[in-house]
Amino acid sequence: MSNSRPPAIILLSGGLDSTTVLAMSLAQGFAPYAMSFDYGQRHAQELDQARHIARQYQVLAHSVVKIDLRAIGGSALTSDLEVPKDRALDQDLDQIPITYVPARNTIFLSFALAWAEVLQARDIFIGVNALDYSGYPDCRQEYIRSYERMANLATRSGVQDHVALRIHTPLIALTKAEIIRVGQDLGVDYALTTSCYDPATNGAPCGRCDACQLRARGFAEAGLPDPLLKRFGQ
Amino acid sequence: MSNSRPPAIILLSGGLDSTTVLAMSLAQGFAPYAMSFDYGQRHAQELDQARHIARQYQVLAHSVVKIDLRAIGGSALTSDLEVPKDRALDQDLDQIPITYVPARNTIFLSFALAWAEVLQARDIFIGVNALDYSGYPDCRQEYIRSYERMANLATRSGVQDHVALRIHTPLIALTKAEIIRVGQDLGVDYALTTSCYDPATNGAPCGRCDACQLRARGFAEAGLPDPLLKRFGQ
Repeated sequence: MSNSRPPAIILLSGGLDSTTVLAMSLAQGFAPYAMSFDYGQRHAQELDQARHIARQYQVLAHSVVKIDLRAIGGSALTSDLEVPKDRALDQDLDQIPITYVPARNTIFLSFALAWAEVLQARDIFIGVNALDYSGYPDCRQEYIRSYERMANLATRSGVQDHVALRIHTPLIALTKAEIIRVGQDLGVDYALTTSCYDPATNGAPCGRCDACQLRARGFAEAGLPDPLLKRFGQ
Repeated sequence: MSNSRPPAIILLSGGLDSTTVLAMSLAQGFAPYAMSFDYGQRHAQELDQARHIARQYQVLAHSVVKIDLRAIGGSALTSDLEVPKDRALDQDLDQIPITYVPARNTIFLSFALAWAEVLQARDIFIGVNALDYSGYPDCRQEYIRSYERMANLATRSGVQDHVALRIHTPLIALTKAEIIRVGQDLGVDYALTTSCYDPATNGAPCGRCDACQLRARGFAEAGLPDPLLKRFGQ
């Protein structure tokens, strides 16, 4: 079965968005190869989640690439800066938050590009979203299209074999509620996905960081309970 | 003194080209921050060389980023494939060689971009060369300009502060002989730089891989002896 499906790289953090993207890539007929990053993030359990989800979806391979973003610094997600809590989402998210990791998506896509070339895959999926994270420059359509143009000049397959590489961003224009509804239709088990920037050691979400707030609002707007909260008895 | 000089990231492999670029960046009045990669290359002594050169040039910081390209595979430089020897340079280099590492410059530039953002640097130097390595897609001017456009959409400084980031490629159109003459004029000690893809354990170059052949031809055309060969009594 997998032989007839074209391979695709799915950037999988183990969060709500990327898990939905993985389910969408399968629904579109791709043979998924999941790629995750161990980049010294505070919440290493995210990686365990990603592994669990990769197994559940029977990806053809799951590559966990260890990279050292801490050596570069500059973000609350990889350093000792405090994760902001209880921010007013609509006002404050216009500014680029300190949870922004410099050039993170550029680095992640570059590893995906390398793997795509080795696998001879033409398709990369990334769960960026321009609505919820308007403050992140590397979550915008304009950036992704520019990355795609560069990628098609960067690789052997693009240059020698004229194989166009596509970066799929199926969530880019969806609200969190719409993402959740799509995932719900595809049978995604959101109890497996944490979004929290600063979870407790048992994995329970803090409920107060930007990511938890956006998630809560998304489930509320979708008119659905968040199964993760049930799992942690919240 | 360093306060008045603008910071620049220099991608420093410890080879002939990148060492020349470091010297050029200093001559142009930049305060250099060197960045090297520990990517499971066969010739780990390259990194010791890079450290030595970084110290010699008194860079403001030297970041050695550990990344795992072996997990991705696909090149003789990071896997067990054999490094080709005694190739006829002019005929064979038209093909992309198996020493090509998939998306390597894209990955390296992405880390440089992240560091540039943290340091608030607007300048990145990379020693790519379109003449000697015509087979490498990510050594061409067209690719670099496309990367630059993408980079200016990817970062907080580009988007929020409208600070244009520049990728400098001072070697891109030079022959190896021209690079060597420029470096000679700037006092670069080429005895410190190895280029070999497959050196002996004591660091002696093999003399037969593409990189050794290109280097030998460069010194011959420049009409200069290679001080590295003298160092190893070759």
